[in-house]
Amino acid sequence: MSDLARFSINQMTVRQLPLPDLVDACVRLGIPGVGLWREPVAEYGLEATAKLVRDAGLAVTTLCRGGFFTTAAGPDDNRAAVDEAAALGTATLVLVSGGLPPGGKDLPAARALIAGALAELAPYAASRGVRLAIEPLHPMYAADRCAVSTLDQALALAEPFPAAQVGVVVDTYHVWWDDRAPAAVARAGAEGRIHSFQLADWTTPLPAGVLTGRGQLGDGTVDLRAWRERVDAAGYTGPIEVELFNDTLWARDGLDVLEDTARRYVAHVL
Amino acid sequence: MSDLARFSINQMTVRQLPLPDLVDACVRLGIPGVGLWREPVAEYGLEATAKLVRDAGLAVTTLCRGGFFTTAAGPDDNRAAVDEAAALGTATLVLVSGGLPPGGKDLPAARALIAGALAELAPYAASRGVRLAIEPLHPMYAADRCAVSTLDQALALAEPFPAAQVGVVVDTYHVWWDDRAPAAVARAGAEGRIHSFQLADWTTPLPAGVLTGRGQLGDGTVDLRAWRERVDAAGYTGPIEVELFNDTLWARDGLDVLEDTARRYVAHVL
Repeated sequence: MSDLARFSINQMTVRQLPLPDLVDACVRLGIPGVGLWREPVAEYGLEATAKLVRDAGLAVTTLCRGGFFTTAAGPDDNRAAVDEAAALGTATLVLVSGGLPPGGKDLPAARALIAGALAELAPYAASRGVRLAIEPLHPMYAADRCAVSTLDQALALAEPFPAAQVGVVVDTYHVWWDDRAPAAVARAGAEGRIHSFQLADWTTPLPAGVLTGRGQLGDGTVDLRAWRERVDAAGYTGPIEVELFNDTLWARDGLDVLEDTARRYVAHVL
Repeated sequence: MSDLARFSINQMTVRQLPLPDLVDACVRLGIPGVGLWREPVAEYGLEATAKLVRDAGLAVTTLCRGGFFTTAAGPDDNRAAVDEAAALGTATLVLVSGGLPPGGKDLPAARALIAGALAELAPYAASRGVRLAIEPLHPMYAADRCAVSTLDQALALAEPFPAAQVGVVVDTYHVWWDDRAPAAVARAGAEGRIHSFQLADWTTPLPAGVLTGRGQLGDGTVDLRAWRERVDAAGYTGPIEVELFNDTLWARDGLDVLEDTARRYVAHVL
């Protein structure tokens, strides 16, 4: 299945699958990469996870996530996330930067906090061979999860650092609506700052809390192929990771969801 | 209560109040303006509503809404909305422009449809003494309600027309997250295109469907006073309308909500 040469499955998409089952299925289906999350990795064991994916020949395309610089997470936890990324053999730690501090109403001030935390974390990450990938989240998360709402903002935060240290995540779910995103993708590509490309479709109505309604590829309003072509045209040649948080998919058989996701990737993205 | 000199209550904020009760309460509380919606106006009767508010000396600050140019609404319905605005004596018809056509994935194409419909509607509205006010909606509504997600996009759509014919709505709920909105407000003000200024706060978690979670003033993350000062600095001197869609508020006594909203306006906006 050379069609899947760039495909990566984020483990949250099929979080109902135990890690060994996910790894086995990836090998069987010819899926070459997985994106991992810290919590399930910790549950299975960091070293055990690293060995499992290494022995299977899988690439770990990203580790989610560091960040929350404005609220709970301190520098220690973020350095630990870097260490875990290094241990898993992935070059890319995804950052969800955090929203407003408690009681805060000042988004530029929150972004200034994020800039300060990056300045502290980036050199440490570089010393461990890990790139930081700032993920702009959809503006509906600006208050409580991520004050970085656009690729332009993410690139402005990345700019003080070498591209090999700090870049961005282009996730279609978060940026599809933004008429300035195509130009930002081109710029990010030219600067070598596209550190991850993630896919999810946009479906409505959104569920309460708006966290678990990311659409399966092809079910929504995102022109996924156009986005893949756009990112390719910007010079990106890396993995294409599918990351869905979706209650309906989580209620289904995980292997079915995985196979369906790979089929839909071929049909709607390539 | 000269504090309320610019205050307007959008009737959806207290939709549990029958129109005569709302009008009586506004007179009693010294609230000089109301924003109306077509459906409850039709229910009470267009002429009866016009007489009720006129006799009470209330200004109708806006009529919601025309639009949905990309989907259901045809030109006839939008001309009818203009006629109703004229009959109610309001200068401002708010436009919620519509999202993607069924099966569509092309937001720029949807915005082109909107531009075409505006070209048809604006001269008719002008002939009736009604200004069209394009309301950018939060990007979480881009697919299904409004392909116009930013003030910049709304201003670009308004630009071909005289400011007296087509302008924009600045609604804090929809634009508070946007780091480009302050500059757009300044530009809109300089061009004389701020046709309505509406307030709602941003609270999380969002409810399912994300339509009925607009926060009561002061409950959320929007710096309402800073936005009022920004719009004032842009030269806007018109009404400040509070439009909340909120299940919790709708479940309460309408008069209590109205009085509380006026108090919060004084506390958080002035």
